[in-house]
Amino acid sequence: MRACDIIARKRDGFAHSRDELAYFINGYVKGDIGDEQMAAWLMAVYFQGMNEEETIILTDLMLHSGEMIDLSGIDGIVVDKHSTGGVGDKTTLVLAPLVAAAGVPVAKLSGRGLGFTGGTIDKLEAIPGFQTSIPTERFLQQVNRIGIAVAGQTSSLVLADKKMYALRDITATVESIPLIASSIMSKKLASGANSIVLDVKFGSGAFMQEKERAELLAQTMVKIGNGLGRRTSAVLSSMEEPLGYAVGNSLEVQEAIDTLQGHGPADLQELCLTLGGQMIYLGGKTSTAEDGYVLAKEMLESGRAYEKLLELIHAQGGSLENGMVQAQHQYAVKAPVSGVVQKIRARDIGHASMLLGAGRETKASAIDLSAGILVQKKTGDTVQAGEPLAVLYYNDAFAHRVEEAARELQQSYIIGDGAAHMEPLIWKVISE
Amino acid sequence: MRACDIIARKRDGFAHSRDELAYFINGYVKGDIGDEQMAAWLMAVYFQGMNEEETIILTDLMLHSGEMIDLSGIDGIVVDKHSTGGVGDKTTLVLAPLVAAAGVPVAKLSGRGLGFTGGTIDKLEAIPGFQTSIPTERFLQQVNRIGIAVAGQTSSLVLADKKMYALRDITATVESIPLIASSIMSKKLASGANSIVLDVKFGSGAFMQEKERAELLAQTMVKIGNGLGRRTSAVLSSMEEPLGYAVGNSLEVQEAIDTLQGHGPADLQELCLTLGGQMIYLGGKTSTAEDGYVLAKEMLESGRAYEKLLELIHAQGGSLENGMVQAQHQYAVKAPVSGVVQKIRARDIGHASMLLGAGRETKASAIDLSAGILVQKKTGDTVQAGEPLAVLYYNDAFAHRVEEAARELQQSYIIGDGAAHMEPLIWKVISE
Repeated sequence: MRACDIIARKRDGFAHSRDELAYFINGYVKGDIGDEQMAAWLMAVYFQGMNEEETIILTDLMLHSGEMIDLSGIDGIVVDKHSTGGVGDKTTLVLAPLVAAAGVPVAKLSGRGLGFTGGTIDKLEAIPGFQTSIPTERFLQQVNRIGIAVAGQTSSLVLADKKMYALRDITATVESIPLIASSIMSKKLASGANSIVLDVKFGSGAFMQEKERAELLAQTMVKIGNGLGRRTSAVLSSMEEPLGYAVGNSLEVQEAIDTLQGHGPADLQELCLTLGGQMIYLGGKTSTAEDGYVLAKEMLESGRAYEKLLELIHAQGGSLENGMVQAQHQYAVKAPVSGVVQKIRARDIGHASMLLGAGRETKASAIDLSAGILVQKKTGDTVQAGEPLAVLYYNDAFAHRVEEAARELQQSYIIGDGAAHMEPLIWKVISE
Repeated sequence: MRACDIIARKRDGFAHSRDELAYFINGYVKGDIGDEQMAAWLMAVYFQGMNEEETIILTDLMLHSGEMIDLSGIDGIVVDKHSTGGVGDKTTLVLAPLVAAAGVPVAKLSGRGLGFTGGTIDKLEAIPGFQTSIPTERFLQQVNRIGIAVAGQTSSLVLADKKMYALRDITATVESIPLIASSIMSKKLASGANSIVLDVKFGSGAFMQEKERAELLAQTMVKIGNGLGRRTSAVLSSMEEPLGYAVGNSLEVQEAIDTLQGHGPADLQELCLTLGGQMIYLGGKTSTAEDGYVLAKEMLESGRAYEKLLELIHAQGGSLENGMVQAQHQYAVKAPVSGVVQKIRARDIGHASMLLGAGRETKASAIDLSAGILVQKKTGDTVQAGEPLAVLYYNDAFAHRVEEAARELQQSYIIGDGAAHMEPLIWKVISE
């Protein structure tokens, strides 16, 4: 077998055998096959795609290319969640305590963010004292003791994905469904959960903007998970505007707390209950996802989900007693005209928050945990000229970019006459 | 400008601007852009192609990436020839003295071969004493003195092509018309000729097997040449069977000598007169290619072309006095059945000759100059069972592979009943 012949087969539209993929992926991880051959193959995959079987095999090979987390010491069915990400996405902060309260063990390994806002680990670090770096043994003990632990990802998971992702990033081969799906799922599967619920978003604030491509991605990931022996489902939801009102790390933690206390934004609560229902069901706590939804709602309304959050914070050394770190300055961005908000370009709001320091422009950038944006008006809201559309939170170090962020934010609002077209939040659930 | 964005533009089917191509190709030659980005771009070009303008710009950038030969010191219009190669292709050995005899200066830089048989330089080295390595100044002086010189290519021409070709070879991106055309033409143009005649072959013994793809390649190369200010034409000819009867270096030199003496194979003579007619016309010696053909025929029949070959050999230190080196052994491959030769798989004959040592399996392989095959029967010939189809010439070092070569050769002949379908040798000439 020669790497060049394998590239030619994909170039010519053939499906790879397991042997071919094993030769190619394992050879690449070992360094026998170079970046140039992988790059050519990735571009061939971009054009020719991969069928379901190939994608499952690719994911299986990738997931075995590095360390794999063993969660077998945890009592119960561990259900993990993955979000394809978006502007103001703080679902993990709500979901993790929510399902843990319902008795589903949460052993969550999360990453840091790039772009828009921080990742879950960045957000948790906005809570004073919260430790995200925990030794494995203590991590597992904590899950068995209080039902929940959230820690930073180890960097030795899925070595193939690390090398391949860095390469895809510089060779314009990121946007391929089988490559995206195998990248995400290999990491989820290596993290050791028994079941996986995928939060797949579409719309202007999502990674995958087109609804149909998001659906295809969701289907592909669900087939991979189920094909490799983990029960997997996906919830497709709209991210045409930011989720909730808060964008930025400590602002989002506060909004998650509000939600767990029962007075959060409706869209965030609805998405968390839907995802939570799926997780509780896959975790074996109810016999249908609908019953899972009901149980999730009970956990929220009874305050038990919020209590679980406090337990988590306490167990990992954090405290809410003195509140979270606050930004020095606020700046209200006003509506230039009166009317109804027709559309909010969520991506631009994400970018504006990054300008204020809430997100990383490059991997090496520091993040300003207190910076961000609190949206005041959402799609369908009526607004008078001069009323605030959003409030910017920022510190001195980023003051020179406030004007730019404000301009960008103002332009991200499309204000017009008449009722706005509202996309339903939850589009569909895919479970096979 | 970022390399990644340029790759994405080609991936998405856009045409590159000159600036984009200059950034990418020059960056690659300098080492600022890595093999992995070039490999992804090459695969994107494989799928999306390049338009005429892009291909001309690419060639222009490539040809300026290394040393360029200055032939301005030569009197007259220098016309170069390039063949896309094939089994038993000894046209240069006939053509060079033929057009030189007609007064067109020949300043030919040729390469060595890989696969099938040797290149022109290998073949000339089958002539005892012939020197193919000549300093530039002496090379130019010789052209002005006797109208002809043939030497090995310098390795510092077209650095971009050197890097890109090595990369294409291992990334399954060789077979792309714009990439093949720009690779060939950048080298031809850097070699300094004023005009170029392309010998483009199609059929089972050619690099480009399909007629339509060969035509597209020819058209693309003609447009590049003319677009960059050199009058260029292409002759499309069939290589469904070997050209002439000889395959292998010294055997081919002998057949070229026979042809220049007026008793060579009809197909080889016809192709050389057609190509020669084009070269003589572009060299300004006649006012039409048809008149060029007539003048070429005159050079052949008068013996002046053969005299020119003897002048060339003498000038470069060679001699035909003691004949050429002979192989130790001969082996006749017999026809298994009686009938009419319907088809000869020329590629398999090329491979059989390589097994006997006449071609290089890898760049590092040594070549056996006396080894090869003399075909006895060609398409349309009647053959009796037991009559020789071909004779293998070989030396002791390759004796262990004779059986395999003989088997391969026998299987390359399709013998049947009734008249064979004969493809005309010359299909068409393209000049714009």
